[in-house]
Amino acid sequence: MAETLGFIGLGNMGEPIAGNLLRAGFGLRVYNRTTSKAAALVARGAELASTSADVALPGGIVLTMLADDRALEEVCCREVSFVERLGPGGVHISLSTIAPGTSRRLAKHHKNFGVAYVGSPVFGRPEAAAAAKLWICSSGEAEAKKRARPLQRAIGQEVFDFGEDVGAANVTKLCGNFVVASAIEALGEAITLAEKNGVNKNSFVEMIGKMSPLYYGYAKQIAENKFEPAGFRLVLGLKDINLILQAAAESTTPMPLGSLVHDRWLSALAKGRQDLDWSAAAIGAAEDAGLR
Amino acid sequence: MAETLGFIGLGNMGEPIAGNLLRAGFGLRVYNRTTSKAAALVARGAELASTSADVALPGGIVLTMLADDRALEEVCCREVSFVERLGPGGVHISLSTIAPGTSRRLAKHHKNFGVAYVGSPVFGRPEAAAAAKLWICSSGEAEAKKRARPLQRAIGQEVFDFGEDVGAANVTKLCGNFVVASAIEALGEAITLAEKNGVNKNSFVEMIGKMSPLYYGYAKQIAENKFEPAGFRLVLGLKDINLILQAAAESTTPMPLGSLVHDRWLSALAKGRQDLDWSAAAIGAAEDAGLR
Amino acid sequence: MAETLGFIGLGNMGEPIAGNLLRAGFGLRVYNRTTSKAAALVARGAELASTSADVALPGGIVLTMLADDRALEEVCCREVSFVERLGPGGVHISLSTIAPGTSRRLAKHHKNFGVAYVGSPVFGRPEAAAAAKLWICSSGEAEAKKRARPLQRAIGQEVFDFGEDVGAANVTKLCGNFVVASAIEALGEAITLAEKNGVNKNSFVEMIGKMSPLYYGYAKQIAENKFEPAGFRLVLGLKDINLILQAAAESTTPMPLGSLVHDRWLSALAKGRQDLDWSAAAIGAAEDAGLR
Amino acid sequence: MAETLGFIGLGNMGEPIAGNLLRAGFGLRVYNRTTSKAAALVARGAELASTSADVALPGGIVLTMLADDRALEEVCCREVSFVERLGPGGVHISLSTIAPGTSRRLAKHHKNFGVAYVGSPVFGRPEAAAAAKLWICSSGEAEAKKRARPLQRAIGQEVFDFGEDVGAANVTKLCGNFVVASAIEALGEAITLAEKNGVNKNSFVEMIGKMSPLYYGYAKQIAENKFEPAGFRLVLGLKDINLILQAAAESTTPMPLGSLVHDRWLSALAKGRQDLDWSAAAIGAAEDAGLR
Repeated sequence: MAETLGFIGLGNMGEPIAGNLLRAGFGLRVYNRTTSKAAALVARGAELASTSADVALPGGIVLTMLADDRALEEVCCREVSFVERLGPGGVHISLSTIAPGTSRRLAKHHKNFGVAYVGSPVFGRPEAAAAAKLWICSSGEAEAKKRARPLQRAIGQEVFDFGEDVGAANVTKLCGNFVVASAIEALGEAITLAEKNGVNKNSFVEMIGKMSPLYYGYAKQIAENKFEPAGFRLVLGLKDINLILQAAAESTTPMPLGSLVHDRWLSALAKGRQDLDWSAAAIGAAEDAGLR
Repeated sequence: MAETLGFIGLGNMGEPIAGNLLRAGFGLRVYNRTTSKAAALVARGAELASTSADVALPGGIVLTMLADDRALEEVCCREVSFVERLGPGGVHISLSTIAPGTSRRLAKHHKNFGVAYVGSPVFGRPEAAAAAKLWICSSGEAEAKKRARPLQRAIGQEVFDFGEDVGAANVTKLCGNFVVASAIEALGEAITLAEKNGVNKNSFVEMIGKMSPLYYGYAKQIAENKFEPAGFRLVLGLKDINLILQAAAESTTPMPLGSLVHDRWLSALAKGRQDLDWSAAAIGAAEDAGLR
Repeated sequence: MAETLGFIGLGNMGEPIAGNLLRAGFGLRVYNRTTSKAAALVARGAELASTSADVALPGGIVLTMLADDRALEEVCCREVSFVERLGPGGVHISLSTIAPGTSRRLAKHHKNFGVAYVGSPVFGRPEAAAAAKLWICSSGEAEAKKRARPLQRAIGQEVFDFGEDVGAANVTKLCGNFVVASAIEALGEAITLAEKNGVNKNSFVEMIGKMSPLYYGYAKQIAENKFEPAGFRLVLGLKDINLILQAAAESTTPMPLGSLVHDRWLSALAKGRQDLDWSAAAIGAAEDAGLR
Repeated sequence: MAETLGFIGLGNMGEPIAGNLLRAGFGLRVYNRTTSKAAALVARGAELASTSADVALPGGIVLTMLADDRALEEVCCREVSFVERLGPGGVHISLSTIAPGTSRRLAKHHKNFGVAYVGSPVFGRPEAAAAAKLWICSSGEAEAKKRARPLQRAIGQEVFDFGEDVGAANVTKLCGNFVVASAIEALGEAITLAEKNGVNKNSFVEMIGKMSPLYYGYAKQIAENKFEPAGFRLVLGLKDINLILQAAAESTTPMPLGSLVHDRWLSALAKGRQDLDWSAAAIGAAEDAGLR
């Protein structure tokens, strides 16, 4: 049997990812603030730890999939942390979408305990996580990445290596999300223009879907004005856009389209759309044109 | 042998399109202001007309692929025009990317002569035209579209029908170009952010290319800062963006991303980049960040 | 008694301007499409002409204050026009806010008749026109401007000379309107931020009014959400913003703030606010934030 | 003789403000990290404190003019702080431009020591500070503001009261700076349009200066392309714009013009203009148009 891993954070992404690690033959010690979420995994053989520190075995590997930068830092830096328990030779594989600066700060922190940090944010919605079809950005020390690779292969369809800077994987992941958010804005404006000109929106969606499958799902949601259930909640999308603009500001990179997207998402929040799918930001373009 | 068609406008799109019609067995009477461009087609059996009007046979079909709205209107509305020569039962298939308003105006004009107008703008670069792989937006009267269909099939891989409004196909084509221009801007900003953060740009391009093949070519050009030879000249791209904003203004549709893209392209023009590929507009994002 | 002038266009700006010319002792031959608007001026001694051409005396001066570029061109270029009637030595003083290109085109046209064109657009609302407090931008041939000067002094408080290019006065006037529109957008966003933070909007208006009197009136309208009666109708403001962006495009000048203002005004139009004061464009900022 | 006050922060704003308090007859205990900056004040009768805590007298008043939120929080919350020394009945008058949230947080902190906090940011450059011509935004508890009033009168020409919320004065001050930054952007674009159209920039500046004296100085700097010496350094302007967008995000207020201004200033920073006057951000508009 393969190595036993620690896993912290069993939300709607973490839970299916952990499940795929079990399926691939890894042992698993899991922790989640709300323990009920661990039940299915435990039924399949995972061990439930009583604290986040307890998931770690000396010199082992811990994966985290937490909500945001603050939650991750809190878990890493508390008095007795899983990082300390891992100790020399340990590896922390961080799956969350967070700021590159946070990764760099944590890597430094981990070094004090002899632990290596691998930035490993993932692309994909819960369905893709369940199907082990995630795309994974990966960066950090070569040795640690080598240990991470079999795990990443067990949960994703492709791993992209971005070198030794632990923040690089985060930058790339944020860039990817930015490109998708920009596509949503573009589709929102295009579909509004089509509608205002009496063009059949469904035909337009079919055509745009041929241009790029990435566009199809979003274009369909926007054209049908149907944003529930949310694949990715708008308020979480705004969190990522904020991380993008933060990374942009820190690296002195003006991103006017980033700003436009930010203001559009913020407006959607102001209008109470935080729990809709993030493509609901496109409603704003229709409203600006006097529709809806 | 199939019907003999008229074809006006043998530029780098029109010439390969006309070639595919020949290959499909249609007869062809062609006209181009610069007659030398017709040589290859004539060698393959096309007949060279001495005026644009002369390409038309009574009740027949004429295709046009001209540079812009003005050139098209000029050819359609001159004293003795191909439209008059077509006369009752004739069909004009208009392949250029033009304003929906121009199509609507011409359709009305053509009606006086008993000629039907089919809006039929195409997606694709010269290579796609040569390979008969264009995507074709099509709108107009059902009967005329029916006659256009075999021709459209001979030059494209897919035809999308947008109903009876002759302007609808133009709106859709413009929307498509707008979405692509927006993707270029997004990629420009994302690649700049990656570069300012020390991320390997080539790895980023590989990843983004997996997200959508549409992105790959543009991302590669931007990352390598290589915009020649131009697949689609920047100044022509700006012409299309202007058509988009014109259609937006006429239909009271605010398009902030359209405006952003417009200003970016206009700046590229001000910097003398009119003859580079239109993805060269992305240089602006790098310059804003103090790069290049 | 001073010279007798021709005056075409007695709208809510033209009528009080013409009145001030009468008051200054000039004779006046007036024309307006709706003749009833001339009644008050006729009662004060003006002569009513039956056609726009009839206002002109050979070698004399004609002032025009028409709605837009098209109306002006139509009046100047009709079969028998006031320009032809003016003939050699005549001067046309054009008060409307129009495109610089239109002025340049008309100046060329007028030259064929020996008539000089003076670009002379004005700043100020109807009250300022009535009080002869307009600011006047002026450009054209030195000799013609010299003849225009006493008239400009009779209707305004200050004349700014922008040299010989007849379009320069128009560019400057458009720049001025652009700066004011930008101030409205800035005030709209600032007042929304204040309101969302619970700040007393009236106190804010008092403070901002101290920073610049130009801001006071607009800030007050926005803070009180009161946009009627319209000092300057929103739809006319949008017309001017369109002229700005047209001049910007023709001179390859990206104006991102110009674009932002354009989209904001266009959205106001889409929401049916065309007849409110143009500061009503600021409602958009409040709506974006979930207010109103 | 009037009360003896504490004063922390003797930069290019703090030093002349403190001087005016001396002139008005107040006693002064001053502190600055770099003690040499206190020399002139000490020569005029101020007492130099060896720590920031030492400026405070029990139940007295302390004014602070520090560089940013962090510097202020550091001074307020260190182990032995001036706040603790002030104790019950004390008043802290905070002159810096900071986030409203920082003021609110500090007011809560101060309450533990019985100290009242007055938000009191000021408008004006060093010359205005020296001439006691500042405009002062003021908010906080009525009693504390009453004690602050004679001091505010000694250093400014007008005090604007924004009620009891200590953050309200900060919001207002940020709104004011935002409006000025927006005016700089507008002027930059307008002057570029004028230049690209061959309009005499100096005449334009004269005209715009008549529209609003606020515009004159900035328009002149931009037209003459002369940004040194800096009245207000660009990097500090960007700091304030960041505070504006932070307040906007926290209150769910989309500010597209705020974003545009942010990106313009960030670009100026990327190009090494941090030490020029903040109106140097306008160079960006000229560069976009291919000038400079």
